[in-house]
Amino acid sequence: MANKSKILIIGGTGYLGKYIVEASARSGHPTLVLVRNSTLTSPSRSTTIEDFKNLGVQFLLGDLDDHTSLVNSIKQADVVISTVGHSLLEHQDKIIAAIKEAGNVKRFFPSEFGNDVDHAQSVVEPAKSVVYATKARIRRIIEAEGIPYTYVSGNFLAGFFLPTLAQLGATSAPRDKVIILGDGNPKAVFNKEEDIATYTIKAIDDPRTLNKTLYIRPPLNTYSFNDLVSLWEKKIGKTLERIYVPEEQLLNQIKEALPPINVRLSLCHSAFVKGGHTNFEIEPSFGVEASELYPDVKYTTVDQFLDQYV
Amino acid sequence: MANKSKILIIGGTGYLGKYIVEASARSGHPTLVLVRNSTLTSPSRSTTIEDFKNLGVQFLLGDLDDHTSLVNSIKQADVVISTVGHSLLEHQDKIIAAIKEAGNVKRFFPSEFGNDVDHAQSVVEPAKSVVYATKARIRRIIEAEGIPYTYVSGNFLAGFFLPTLAQLGATSAPRDKVIILGDGNPKAVFNKEEDIATYTIKAIDDPRTLNKTLYIRPPLNTYSFNDLVSLWEKKIGKTLERIYVPEEQLLNQIKEALPPINVRLSLCHSAFVKGGHTNFEIEPSFGVEASELYPDVKYTTVDQFLDQYV
Repeated sequence: MANKSKILIIGGTGYLGKYIVEASARSGHPTLVLVRNSTLTSPSRSTTIEDFKNLGVQFLLGDLDDHTSLVNSIKQADVVISTVGHSLLEHQDKIIAAIKEAGNVKRFFPSEFGNDVDHAQSVVEPAKSVVYATKARIRRIIEAEGIPYTYVSGNFLAGFFLPTLAQLGATSAPRDKVIILGDGNPKAVFNKEEDIATYTIKAIDDPRTLNKTLYIRPPLNTYSFNDLVSLWEKKIGKTLERIYVPEEQLLNQIKEALPPINVRLSLCHSAFVKGGHTNFEIEPSFGVEASELYPDVKYTTVDQFLDQYV
Repeated sequence: MANKSKILIIGGTGYLGKYIVEASARSGHPTLVLVRNSTLTSPSRSTTIEDFKNLGVQFLLGDLDDHTSLVNSIKQADVVISTVGHSLLEHQDKIIAAIKEAGNVKRFFPSEFGNDVDHAQSVVEPAKSVVYATKARIRRIIEAEGIPYTYVSGNFLAGFFLPTLAQLGATSAPRDKVIILGDGNPKAVFNKEEDIATYTIKAIDDPRTLNKTLYIRPPLNTYSFNDLVSLWEKKIGKTLERIYVPEEQLLNQIKEALPPINVRLSLCHSAFVKGGHTNFEIEPSFGVEASELYPDVKYTTVDQFLDQYV
């Protein structure tokens, strides 16, 4: 344990953060989590806090707006992983400033874990500004400051999309009709949260991921929507009515929708209609692919993942 | 137990059905659940099935489309409660036909548990056709056939709306901005699923609920959206930015949205903008109020319910 890098996670009690904290602690890295005092005592976080305690996670009290606590926390770690939520993405410049002042950080992972914001094209509002431009701005500050980084592109979170087969607003997977955005042919990638966390922790000390984007794009998790529906139909032994939504109609819907649905829909537009997860090659100059880099990781495939919802 | 009515639940492994089955079994009623063979072996239902077994629930194999199995199942029960999901609402005429043929049923509860479809006004599409007209049509068939009934109006399910403070598509309650449909003044009612189930089971043998609507409208669970936000603000010790969505804008959004979001939004329009839960008096000729009828039930209040999300 003495030789393992110390990892500080900021946003560790959030949806994806929890998996990263657990993967870090389970892999034997000394794991620190920055938390507000109010988080430690919040009823809605108590299960997570208890789970972290049992894994030997250390809690550091602090806040993005408290520069001194941030610097002191960062000084105790070798690697900083940010998993802050959407509303805090733009405030990661405060983390960068603290990393710069602390001066000891070997690798910084900003809050990414989705589509690659530098390579996805034709992204529409509001995702364009709220997500893509904000993440890209943070990348540019990191690079300008010369902070060693890895950007993790996890594409779609399986636990978020697959239980309903990406039917936004539904509570279970479709059994008679399925809505398909666009023509259903572009390929999207769905990765289980635990696997994104495992690959992220694998990458922290790996020189091959230094100043690169780590794309999690395992071939078995890469599906066109049409093929995803066919896989599900085979599992439930039933053919679904496929309702295709033309891009024009989707764009109108995005314009009328309220947040956060409009953000969700524009992310779906990028991935399902424009193929943003897969319509570019990963060049060695800027990226590596996780399942190639770490073939020993037994990730959960989409096929396996869907079995629990049959 | 010999004197307690036997209850058959159709749709018992569904979202609300589970609570009704549990409340029935826990209150000592012999409890039967109609299930398909595929449900019994489905990985996604295994926890529910195991839970039911532990409560002594009996499983009857059958299907809405298998008239004989339906009649035979109904013959074993005194009371039939349907909790089938939206896509099966219109097919409840098959249950009615089977109840008619079986001839032994003392009370039928069709799948309702929401807003009162006979008294809510100004409901817009698609909820108007998909939910309200369908439930009303089933009511009229029940009444025409002379089957003893109770309609349960549970209004909004707390577990569905309160974790996000009715922010459709959000994954947690708002901490900076909150979207309010309309002017936030009409009063809506939020009841915990377990309490809806408890009141339903209380009503099954009660002559006061025979051929009546049982409204679950406890004063402590009745809130305008503005007051709900104020309550939440007090709990988290923070004032939120309130973003009001004019009705016109909401109606445009409903027109553009895909299912099931358009259905959800039109239900929200009815309750939050038009006050459909509370803008009529409960007259003794057609209804009774649950918290008045059963003052011994210690229901969970909205105030208590929200505490877990602070």
